[in-house]
Amino acid sequence: MSHKTKAIPPKRLIHLAEGNFSHRKSKMTTGVLRYGYHHSLAVIDSTRVGETANQVIGFGGDVPVVASLRDALDFQPEAILVGITPAGGRLPDDMKQTLLEAIEHGLDVYAGLHDFLTDDPELVAAAKRKGVMLWDIRKPDKHLPVGGGLTRWSKSYISLMVGSDCAIGKMTVALEIDRAAKARGIDCEFVATGQCGIAIAGWGSPIDAIPGDFMAGCVERDVLTCEGSEIILVEGQGSLLHPGFSSVTLGLVHGSCPDSFVLCHQITRREISNIREVPIPSLDEVMRPYIDIVRPFKPNAKLVGVSFNSVGVSDEEAKAAIADAEKLLGVPATDPIRYGAEKLVEAMQKHRKEIGK
Amino acid sequence: MSHKTKAIPPKRLIHLAEGNFSHRKSKMTTGVLRYGYHHSLAVIDSTRVGETANQVIGFGGDVPVVASLRDALDFQPEAILVGITPAGGRLPDDMKQTLLEAIEHGLDVYAGLHDFLTDDPELVAAAKRKGVMLWDIRKPDKHLPVGGGLTRWSKSYISLMVGSDCAIGKMTVALEIDRAAKARGIDCEFVATGQCGIAIAGWGSPIDAIPGDFMAGCVERDVLTCEGSEIILVEGQGSLLHPGFSSVTLGLVHGSCPDSFVLCHQITRREISNIREVPIPSLDEVMRPYIDIVRPFKPNAKLVGVSFNSVGVSDEEAKAAIADAEKLLGVPATDPIRYGAEKLVEAMQKHRKEIGK
Repeated sequence: MSHKTKAIPPKRLIHLAEGNFSHRKSKMTTGVLRYGYHHSLAVIDSTRVGETANQVIGFGGDVPVVASLRDALDFQPEAILVGITPAGGRLPDDMKQTLLEAIEHGLDVYAGLHDFLTDDPELVAAAKRKGVMLWDIRKPDKHLPVGGGLTRWSKSYISLMVGSDCAIGKMTVALEIDRAAKARGIDCEFVATGQCGIAIAGWGSPIDAIPGDFMAGCVERDVLTCEGSEIILVEGQGSLLHPGFSSVTLGLVHGSCPDSFVLCHQITRREISNIREVPIPSLDEVMRPYIDIVRPFKPNAKLVGVSFNSVGVSDEEAKAAIADAEKLLGVPATDPIRYGAEKLVEAMQKHRKEIGK
Repeated sequence: MSHKTKAIPPKRLIHLAEGNFSHRKSKMTTGVLRYGYHHSLAVIDSTRVGETANQVIGFGGDVPVVASLRDALDFQPEAILVGITPAGGRLPDDMKQTLLEAIEHGLDVYAGLHDFLTDDPELVAAAKRKGVMLWDIRKPDKHLPVGGGLTRWSKSYISLMVGSDCAIGKMTVALEIDRAAKARGIDCEFVATGQCGIAIAGWGSPIDAIPGDFMAGCVERDVLTCEGSEIILVEGQGSLLHPGFSSVTLGLVHGSCPDSFVLCHQITRREISNIREVPIPSLDEVMRPYIDIVRPFKPNAKLVGVSFNSVGVSDEEAKAAIADAEKLLGVPATDPIRYGAEKLVEAMQKHRKEIGK
């Protein structure tokens, strides 16, 4: 599913999040509700029946929470999304039963599990019999390309979201910039690189599931699929500083050869996550290797803006952090959720003009 | 096979390199002949019959080239290594027939192909029947760990080979340092990270075949397997500058958190390979992102030496390049093949002392 031309078309979608509909436990569902181009009809979670998505997670409007697949079928869905990403990536057995039932009712099934739907003989047989599609969002394509630095010749303006750490708001800022840019009539594309982003966009490559030799190549191919757009926003993953996930990050840097970076940082984050006692360096130090590494391909690549995640701090503290970063780095900063992403769109438009793109 | 404790023991080995016994086309065989701890008995290549390894590739001593498996069996081998890495990674059909015949004679089979021996039902059935082992050198373990930066606490002195580009001599310098260090009685370990290195050492992880999220974790685990050694030399892969393979390189940096780097460079190389018109930066610029990225984990990590590949240049030119690099970078430089690796061992011993390891 990694080519935009092969994107899954928008569908009338229900979400399976039994016992787990929340920000933390049903990341796929919350992402699609916030940004997805699918038409979300209902969320299955018998523990929150009667509430709306907005009541449970603060957005998603009036999409109702229902008790069962049977109730969700009243909305005449075309597809069901496994909204959770369980620890270990395995599909709980009761969820599998629900999916088999959904297939019997002619629904396509989408999931971003480590265990693939298409490796389960029962699900495969049922899907074949009913002529429905199983979409394993984390399953890489069969034919994978090696990166060749080709995106350095792109005529589009390419910007990559990077972070001072993992799970810090890189997908969110890309989608907020995408939304703000489109609102201004800019021809903008979002390139998804993780399962949640792919579920939202309907296409993309699950870079973290792809063997090392092909990570950059997949991103490169996906970015080139969008060639001709005014702005191409590439979803970030991990961090060059994180020992667990830095390889994936670097695949994105070389695969996209960006004209600019947006740096994401969480104000309260002091240490690299899950790594004891390794402090995050100052933001200018964080950026240096990104710029150094892309320079041979894009000699003028630069940091274009900073996106703060200001969860858990006061408005005053958030504004102080923004002012400090703007002073230190000389580029605009914002929290796109609190204060919008317009500043970042403006910075990109200005930079595009400067480099004649 | 990624734990040292599970290493393949040295075997009486024959090499299958039919029609391809040369430096360029039988990389696995030439690597094992040069450094392998197996006992190489013969190389099968009917086009070079009667010559010795030394006559064909300049080392490997009197190991004879023979016409067929039948002739090679006279040497009473225990295992056969597929010595070539064919384009596309597929096993040619006539080679498969030879392997089936070898299995019938009770030989284990080693191969570093993209297509796994263990995915071929015929080979698997034959191996099972005869009780022999199929070793797919490029096949990752089933259970893969995520990196946690744990090697930063290692008491061993860890040095990672890095390069200004791909295919520049990173495995070679590690093995030359390993040999020179062991000759001095230093307790040194070589951690293989690619198929050729793994074939040579008998263990290691094929990092380029491992999904991005687990590359650093595998290296980390392998390095920790050697904990307690005086020096741990980690085979390098790719280059932080190469858009196709940089992810793999970074997995090694974070997986090993080295105390030092050895920088490999080919004197005649001006551009990043297979990438049109992207010049390799100066060697100090090449090193900067490596140091920046490892600094949060090893604040005192440094470049400890430079290893030149001086193929195709005169002795005078090689010595001039070495002198220039020593002046620019302030560390010893050598070509380990022409001038030995002793200078690099000495530099590591000095650095070990300085940091109290």
